Amino acid sequence: MTIRVGVLGARGKVGRAICAAVEAAPDLELVAEVDKDDSLETFTAAGTEVVIDFTHPDVVMGNLKFLVANGIHAVVGTTGFDAARLDEVRGWLAGKPEVGVLIAPNFAIGAVLSMRFAEQAARFFESVEVIELHHPNKADAPSGTAYRTAGLIAAARARAGAGRSPDATSTELDGARGADVDGVRVHSVRLAGLVAHQEVLFGTQGETLTIRHDSIDRTSFVPGVLLGVRSIAARPGLTVGLDPLLDL
Amino acid sequence: MTIRVGVLGARGKVGRAICAAVEAAPDLELVAEVDKDDSLETFTAAGTEVVIDFTHPDVVMGNLKFLVANGIHAVVGTTGFDAARLDEVRGWLAGKPEVGVLIAPNFAIGAVLSMRFAEQAARFFESVEVIELHHPNKADAPSGTAYRTAGLIAAARARAGAGRSPDATSTELDGARGADVDGVRVHSVRLAGLVAHQEVLFGTQGETLTIRHDSIDRTSFVPGVLLGVRSIAARPGLTVGLDPLLDL
Amino acid sequence: MTIRVGVLGARGKVGRAICAAVEAAPDLELVAEVDKDDSLETFTAAGTEVVIDFTHPDVVMGNLKFLVANGIHAVVGTTGFDAARLDEVRGWLAGKPEVGVLIAPNFAIGAVLSMRFAEQAARFFESVEVIELHHPNKADAPSGTAYRTAGLIAAARARAGAGRSPDATSTELDGARGADVDGVRVHSVRLAGLVAHQEVLFGTQGETLTIRHDSIDRTSFVPGVLLGVRSIAARPGLTVGLDPLLDL
Amino acid sequence: MTIRVGVLGARGKVGRAICAAVEAAPDLELVAEVDKDDSLETFTAAGTEVVIDFTHPDVVMGNLKFLVANGIHAVVGTTGFDAARLDEVRGWLAGKPEVGVLIAPNFAIGAVLSMRFAEQAARFFESVEVIELHHPNKADAPSGTAYRTAGLIAAARARAGAGRSPDATSTELDGARGADVDGVRVHSVRLAGLVAHQEVLFGTQGETLTIRHDSIDRTSFVPGVLLGVRSIAARPGLTVGLDPLLDL
Repeated sequence: MTIRVGVLGARGKVGRAICAAVEAAPDLELVAEVDKDDSLETFTAAGTEVVIDFTHPDVVMGNLKFLVANGIHAVVGTTGFDAARLDEVRGWLAGKPEVGVLIAPNFAIGAVLSMRFAEQAARFFESVEVIELHHPNKADAPSGTAYRTAGLIAAARARAGAGRSPDATSTELDGARGADVDGVRVHSVRLAGLVAHQEVLFGTQGETLTIRHDSIDRTSFVPGVLLGVRSIAARPGLTVGLDPLLDL
Repeated sequence: MTIRVGVLGARGKVGRAICAAVEAAPDLELVAEVDKDDSLETFTAAGTEVVIDFTHPDVVMGNLKFLVANGIHAVVGTTGFDAARLDEVRGWLAGKPEVGVLIAPNFAIGAVLSMRFAEQAARFFESVEVIELHHPNKADAPSGTAYRTAGLIAAARARAGAGRSPDATSTELDGARGADVDGVRVHSVRLAGLVAHQEVLFGTQGETLTIRHDSIDRTSFVPGVLLGVRSIAARPGLTVGLDPLLDL
Repeated sequence: MTIRVGVLGARGKVGRAICAAVEAAPDLELVAEVDKDDSLETFTAAGTEVVIDFTHPDVVMGNLKFLVANGIHAVVGTTGFDAARLDEVRGWLAGKPEVGVLIAPNFAIGAVLSMRFAEQAARFFESVEVIELHHPNKADAPSGTAYRTAGLIAAARARAGAGRSPDATSTELDGARGADVDGVRVHSVRLAGLVAHQEVLFGTQGETLTIRHDSIDRTSFVPGVLLGVRSIAARPGLTVGLDPLLDL
Repeated sequence: MTIRVGVLGARGKVGRAICAAVEAAPDLELVAEVDKDDSLETFTAAGTEVVIDFTHPDVVMGNLKFLVANGIHAVVGTTGFDAARLDEVRGWLAGKPEVGVLIAPNFAIGAVLSMRFAEQAARFFESVEVIELHHPNKADAPSGTAYRTAGLIAAARARAGAGRSPDATSTELDGARGADVDGVRVHSVRLAGLVAHQEVLFGTQGETLTIRHDSIDRTSFVPGVLLGVRSIAARPGLTVGLDPLLDL
């Protein structure tokens, strides 16, 4: 028994990669490809069970309202979900208790795991710093992932009563010690030849633990999306982030 | 309220490091130091609550029998515990249900966490390999930690129904692809200037996750031992390995 | 004044990447694109100064004979040059002393530099090992680059009278200590999510030096090819390998 | 034939490590150990050929004046040599043309090689950044070695006409992009469990080259000092830095 899958934004770069991955998976069947000029009713007509939405903040809410109303599960990588939007989705789902919606800011399993492990390790070490490394065309520093990682680490340390990392620096050239994100030092490297990488370094007496994630290809989100498609029917209601599906 | 701590093997290199760490900890009090020519009754006379034993397989069973019989908790880093020895300790503890004994092969928290994370990540990636790197005076290859890590990974993959890592190698110079430990490739580097290091590499489409542990000092076991001392009174019975104390 | 450049094998994947790079370079002009059904006289007709050849061992000798005879410099990435072929090219060049031909097995500047640095560092350290890491579809282990790197290191150590790296291993699981290439241990990792990577590790008392090269894209040879194109007119005769152009 | 070696500052921590290394070397003979209350004439009385000086800026000039005047070669790791001091030493050596003095700020061969390789690689890559990582008790950020490394890289790039590394950062949290040393970004990590480490990262289209140096032990300067002792008799006059002895 295969799962009948539809794709929204099917003709964009990301959408095409997703369609190809669905077609290659023996347990999934690609039954509907929809892009901006197509009707959402294509999904209902095709008997679609799960729709993958990597579209745009302007249209994703309309898409989701339709999918939930029609009893179709959704796996969503589109950005722009704030608390108000998530509440609106929860409202729709309240009237359709059998439908599942997964909304995740990051589907790269390696990135999600490395944030989770960083959070778990945070309280056992005296020191922690984050180095994120990206291609030089990136506009923001630190990266969104580094902000989230540092925030998770800081919260875990606060819960455990751990203090700040020790630091005897008394003479600093401006910027050498990086940015301060919730008390965690974050360093942003921008280098030609890189794509998206992050290292979390933990240290205590005589030992260090490093959790490194390297993403060298825009398709690294695909395995996480497929995991979502396979899991969502068994998780009615709203799921935010890939973590709950990993059963760690 | 401080914990009254005793140390067995107090005058060896490891024992001296432990004594120094206990003395430096504000919540612990070093009340008894015992080495091979001293009587175990030093501990009872001093009102010792927890004894740390880093001694020798030949004497550790006698030590433990005495400690359990006298209601003293034990934190044990001595090696040589097989199933039969663990059962014998459980037998003594059956008659003293309030006493806790922690026996761990590795007290380096970073090493324990990296094994745990490797086990958790194992089923999410197509590929996994282990590289362990040590000083050139080490007699065995792979290291005991690498054996255990590969075994945990292999078991986690088997439970999840994951297959072997893909490998198209058709022409191999003998040994290039490493050793096969339960289907996981393990590579052992021996290099002057190193102490004890391990990398677990996971990979799937477009991304890799690396968990690296570096131990550069023989004292890296100390924070784990102190964690054991502080936790053992609340964990009656036998605890094997540091993991249960980490509440991951 | 721009250099007038022609490309052989222009419609293959590599050729198209080269054509695009030549067109993007302000000091180079792409004047002729030739593939297997086109005449080599396209180059002479277009007044080509330098031809880039990434074709096939079966045709490259004919290409080179024509280019040298017509006074056109060549930058060659095609494989399959043994001593006999190199001598044949030298013979043609003897009659055309103003023409330059560059034949290189590897145009990735980072790879060439890392081999060179490894060779230079080899005699200063007690220990050296090589780890190469590639995608799991690779057929051979170790990689050709790892063989060459280990060979260069071994030769440099032999010239300096340095002995083998120390190694006290007495109990080894088959393959753990890697392959032996001229007395240098080489470990081959095969992992999904990787492309082509190599680490050379040197160690002596209390310190290690690591030279790591990561290639994550098939276009990493392009900067080296352009360097060859710009340098070859000033280097008449046969040049083998990119090293001489780097003026290290 | 052994070299007759003396040590200045012989009873300090560094001096004791040096004495032990000299004694362990079969081609060196330790003939004189001098500390602050001993007479320098101990060296002449013992027929010392080379003296190693790891003392203090306050006394090193007096030591060197005596050694040069008595025809004894010197290998000096004491800090505080500015241009004026170096000129003064050159003046003494002018009258003793057979005597050699080596003054080096860093005797760790791995550190010296990594700076040299970074300088050589600097002009071949679009991008370069430096990450230095040290124990958290370090007072200055960046480290002296990172300052020197960035300076050498910047100078090499300027000579080759290479521009600044590309960087599209438009939104930066203060400090994220590190410190600017002569146009090279430098990041300083401070972490318990580390000693002294540095990574130089180079990148261009599709590839990166990383040169990493790890020093985990205060004795990592010893092999460089012994190299100096063995080489200095053949290098009359003043030699500054270990580089010239490496014959790269």
